[in-house]
Amino acid sequence: MKRIAFLLLASAAAAAGVVVCMAQTSGQAAGEAAPIYGIKIPPGYRDWRLISVAHEAGDLNDLRAILGNDTAIKAYREQKLPFPDGTIIARLAWSYVPSEENNKVFGRDQSFVAGPPINLQLMVKDSKKYSTTGGWGFAQFKDGKPADEAVLKTCFPCHEPAKASDFVFTHYSP
Amino acid sequence: MKRIAFLLLASAAAAAGVVVCMAQTSGQAAGEAAPIYGIKIPPGYRDWRLISVAHEAGDLNDLRAILGNDTAIKAYREQKLPFPDGTIIARLAWSYVPSEENNKVFGRDQSFVAGPPINLQLMVKDSKKYSTTGGWGFAQFKDGKPADEAVLKTCFPCHEPAKASDFVFTHYSP
Repeated sequence: MKRIAFLLLASAAAAAGVVVCMAQTSGQAAGEAAPIYGIKIPPGYRDWRLISVAHEAGDLNDLRAILGNDTAIKAYREQKLPFPDGTIIARLAWSYVPSEENNKVFGRDQSFVAGPPINLQLMVKDSKKYSTTGGWGFAQFKDGKPADEAVLKTCFPCHEPAKASDFVFTHYSP
Repeated sequence: MKRIAFLLLASAAAAAGVVVCMAQTSGQAAGEAAPIYGIKIPPGYRDWRLISVAHEAGDLNDLRAILGNDTAIKAYREQKLPFPDGTIIARLAWSYVPSEENNKVFGRDQSFVAGPPINLQLMVKDSKKYSTTGGWGFAQFKDGKPADEAVLKTCFPCHEPAKASDFVFTHYSP
């Protein structure tokens, strides 16, 4: 039994090591907390499952993936609203860039791919802690650095029109 | 020890059940094999991690997510080419549709989201089995039904220009 317990501990330690390593080599590393809501980058968020994708044209001009932690994915798939406490939704945005490589193959300019990362936005559900903002805390990070208070103050007012879907814009794509 | 063995078996069975259930409620269900390469839809592919996203304009007019199984993600993150046998890359495409809901919030037409699913494409690495097509097998499915032979014959010729990146167009987005 002692040996089994040791193996389990060793596996857990190895798994923890892998998570830390992956958080650093993929996506932004956890660090400083964002203002107002006190949210840090969740370790391993880049490994979360996909909710959907989108393209924002105009000034944003990005391609984005919306990922969710296990609680988020379960709620989306079961179509349960409001999202339960513990839900975290991560929006990763990259520059929207034409792909010369792909366009050569297609024989015309039609292919747009994800360029350099722009930033990471997070929505964290905690109905008590964030009761004045629909139960959601908001954060934004660029290269691991949180956006300032002025930026984060704009999050909830922008999400308010989506009240019917618990202040979340993104729908799940099967 | 017997009790531990039983618990392990029970966990494994439960985990297997979860995977089967999720494959049916998210993404396309596994079924018929695609022609030429004999590839079936891998159970649980909708839970795979994200490689990148893209938008193909023109006739395709889609938003797409490219997901990879564990072997694919590991190879991408370690920047190892060629991809090892066992790599599977899944390209999920949805219609590229404007989001009225989002555009109202932004105050202008700038938001494009994933609409109804178009199809699922797969690349499966098996350097021996698929030695005549760069080590890759190709498949395409719509609503769980495989595309016919004529469609699949176009896959490898289209991917040939990407020989330098082991016939794969998509780059990893951190």
